[in-house]
Amino acid sequence: MRTRFYNARILTMEDGRDIFEGELWVVGDRIIFVGTEEEGRHYCDSHKDTILVWDEEIDCKKNLLMPGFKNAHTHSAMALMRSKADDLPLSDWLGTQIFPIEAKMTVEDIYHLSKISIMEYLTSGMTAAFEMYLTPFSVADAFRDCGFRCVQTSCVNNFSQSVELLEKYYTDLNGRDEYNSFILGIHAEYTCSKELLEKTAELTHKYKAPFWAHISETESEVKECRDRYGMSPVEFFDSLGLFDYGGGGYHLVWTDDKDMEIMKKRGLYAVTNPASNMKLASGVAPISDYVAKGIPVAIGTDGPASNNCLDMFREMFLVTALSKIRNMDAASMDASEVLKMATVNGAHAMGLKDADVLAEGKLADIIMLDMTQPNMQPENNIVKNIVYSGSKSNVLMTMIGGIIRYNRGKFNIGAEPDEIYAKAYEISKRLYA
Amino acid sequence: MRTRFYNARILTMEDGRDIFEGELWVVGDRIIFVGTEEEGRHYCDSHKDTILVWDEEIDCKKNLLMPGFKNAHTHSAMALMRSKADDLPLSDWLGTQIFPIEAKMTVEDIYHLSKISIMEYLTSGMTAAFEMYLTPFSVADAFRDCGFRCVQTSCVNNFSQSVELLEKYYTDLNGRDEYNSFILGIHAEYTCSKELLEKTAELTHKYKAPFWAHISETESEVKECRDRYGMSPVEFFDSLGLFDYGGGGYHLVWTDDKDMEIMKKRGLYAVTNPASNMKLASGVAPISDYVAKGIPVAIGTDGPASNNCLDMFREMFLVTALSKIRNMDAASMDASEVLKMATVNGAHAMGLKDADVLAEGKLADIIMLDMTQPNMQPENNIVKNIVYSGSKSNVLMTMIGGIIRYNRGKFNIGAEPDEIYAKAYEISKRLYA
Repeated sequence: MRTRFYNARILTMEDGRDIFEGELWVVGDRIIFVGTEEEGRHYCDSHKDTILVWDEEIDCKKNLLMPGFKNAHTHSAMALMRSKADDLPLSDWLGTQIFPIEAKMTVEDIYHLSKISIMEYLTSGMTAAFEMYLTPFSVADAFRDCGFRCVQTSCVNNFSQSVELLEKYYTDLNGRDEYNSFILGIHAEYTCSKELLEKTAELTHKYKAPFWAHISETESEVKECRDRYGMSPVEFFDSLGLFDYGGGGYHLVWTDDKDMEIMKKRGLYAVTNPASNMKLASGVAPISDYVAKGIPVAIGTDGPASNNCLDMFREMFLVTALSKIRNMDAASMDASEVLKMATVNGAHAMGLKDADVLAEGKLADIIMLDMTQPNMQPENNIVKNIVYSGSKSNVLMTMIGGIIRYNRGKFNIGAEPDEIYAKAYEISKRLYA
Repeated sequence: MRTRFYNARILTMEDGRDIFEGELWVVGDRIIFVGTEEEGRHYCDSHKDTILVWDEEIDCKKNLLMPGFKNAHTHSAMALMRSKADDLPLSDWLGTQIFPIEAKMTVEDIYHLSKISIMEYLTSGMTAAFEMYLTPFSVADAFRDCGFRCVQTSCVNNFSQSVELLEKYYTDLNGRDEYNSFILGIHAEYTCSKELLEKTAELTHKYKAPFWAHISETESEVKECRDRYGMSPVEFFDSLGLFDYGGGGYHLVWTDDKDMEIMKKRGLYAVTNPASNMKLASGVAPISDYVAKGIPVAIGTDGPASNNCLDMFREMFLVTALSKIRNMDAASMDASEVLKMATVNGAHAMGLKDADVLAEGKLADIIMLDMTQPNMQPENNIVKNIVYSGSKSNVLMTMIGGIIRYNRGKFNIGAEPDEIYAKAYEISKRLYA
């Protein structure tokens, strides 16, 4: 496919580059040009050997093109439990509502259920998800079949999966298809034995690979880890050599200065999940401290059972608003910093170095935002409008790898919404019987 | 207009009534029937004298009809300053960014700017706004011309408006047209002299009328009031007799047990504005305490300069999520309680007793929510889906007084969006010159 977007405003998210009016051209899964109309003419003059015949030319009517959002932590198939397991603390939520149902889920269930969340990502302008769930192969199949970019890690723990399987996921899923990749990781300290973690550390060393996990999500998790090992989860993982090749953590709500020193030293990413942390009453992460110390932050929704909405606009607002209220400082956490977390930082955390900004040679993972809705008016500051008053209702189009997967309410994901919902209904009836 | 909605699911918001499948009929500005298809047949049999010829019959395709949301605190014309005055504490925000621009606004500016927010209310499924701004007559004109229900109070203070004007607004705006009404109120304790408040109290007694104000929004506001009068703002207002006929306050973030006793005794409403309170770093209101003590809570967005989004879905999520995090209790503040705040309680706080639920004889202030989007699937619990994962993108239709004012992205408000935005641009250019 060759697609020409014209009459657009473009926010490339490259450092220091302001929004400008121009064009963006896509050939195959890559951006071949982004610039003003005049720069486009120069491009044609200097590429006379390239014949540009477009399959589609899209008049953006001055709406905004920008990189898609990266959902840096989620559990897609948990859509099944949306609004089924609310208003419980994390430990009860896992123990009484989540684990018993998950124990009954099949590989196929997880394939089908993942698609509901993939649809929701598309409606919210997300173009990639950092996924962790029980059956990485069927999850990867769902993302591939929908044409949605997925980076997975595993949820290895004492009760499911194994370090052997973890290695298999790593070797088999990387390079398997154009949509999927895999990063080493485990569920969390509190569900893994020291032996399991030591074996995982051997794997990170064998592949010189980064390591990820749920880390310091609740105060009690940290306390229990200190009781067990005399160290916080960050210190403990680091002491095992798990962070020798970098990586990061999901949540990281209850960290202290010593943790942050390690995070900084190891180049770790902090993925924050503000809505989930509020809804499960886990706490408010010290995001402004991470930013002040130069620890890169990315943003995830967490799964639909704990959030329950998969909406990057809500998460972006929460990152800045919670920081303001945590510090009782309305100047805390500027909108442009937060927009970078939701796009560029997410891509880098997930190892998607070619999906970070809109530039020649980068992946065509692009969204178009409607600037004509009242929440985007007047246009005093478009970046602030996106972060403070933007909504998924502004998402007109979501393109992944050069293919438009969502366009003004319509999905192009190889299956019809009705089929996907019917399948979920069938699974729900069986599992909740 | 006579409109028949059929094939709908209906959430009337009447106590104890579950969602059911059925029909809703509107004649003029009122609901004449709501019930199952079979009940509809009985209705026809027993109303043989009524000839039901429909101007429009709408197949709801199993989507949800429910009462429109009531935005119980806002300053619509402040859309002008959206994304212009962010990241500042309340006092600086008012002193350096808001008051100097407001001083230059004309009556006509406020008329035009209000319409941007009215559009945004419609996209978020709101059917009424509790408004406070500088020029109540031109604000009322904007709401009337758009066909949007508006309850106003004034922002009388030492520097603008007056108690004489307040009385004029009260007598002239109530009953002026079908969309507008007016309730007595002032800006806030910290902007009003004791003399002004005493004269206002005479007015509330003269008309036996409720009283509203911004109350205890910030910690420093309460401290300064205590320094001045040895009482909190709630106590001080009450000591002047301002609450003798009820009313309520906007924000009410920094209240104590004594305040809550007065609120309970006087039957006051607490209007909470969680996004604005976070963004201005004002604090988190003790909503679960209000609920526990039987103080009714309604929800407002506050104005677009402080929020910056006018989105009841965001506010509803924040009310429950902030309560969970404030109490570190994931069970705090159930979704159904919050949905009641956003609809029934809002209507009652605003004196709109006929706009609270969907029932025969009530005003036809109705919205239709799209249940076919992925954030509403699976349908484990529709009320929780609305509060926890709902979004303004689910709003298909907003009807006010029997007239559809917003339908799938299109507005019916007597002016075109482009005109309204162009006018705002012109005003912005002039005022920020």
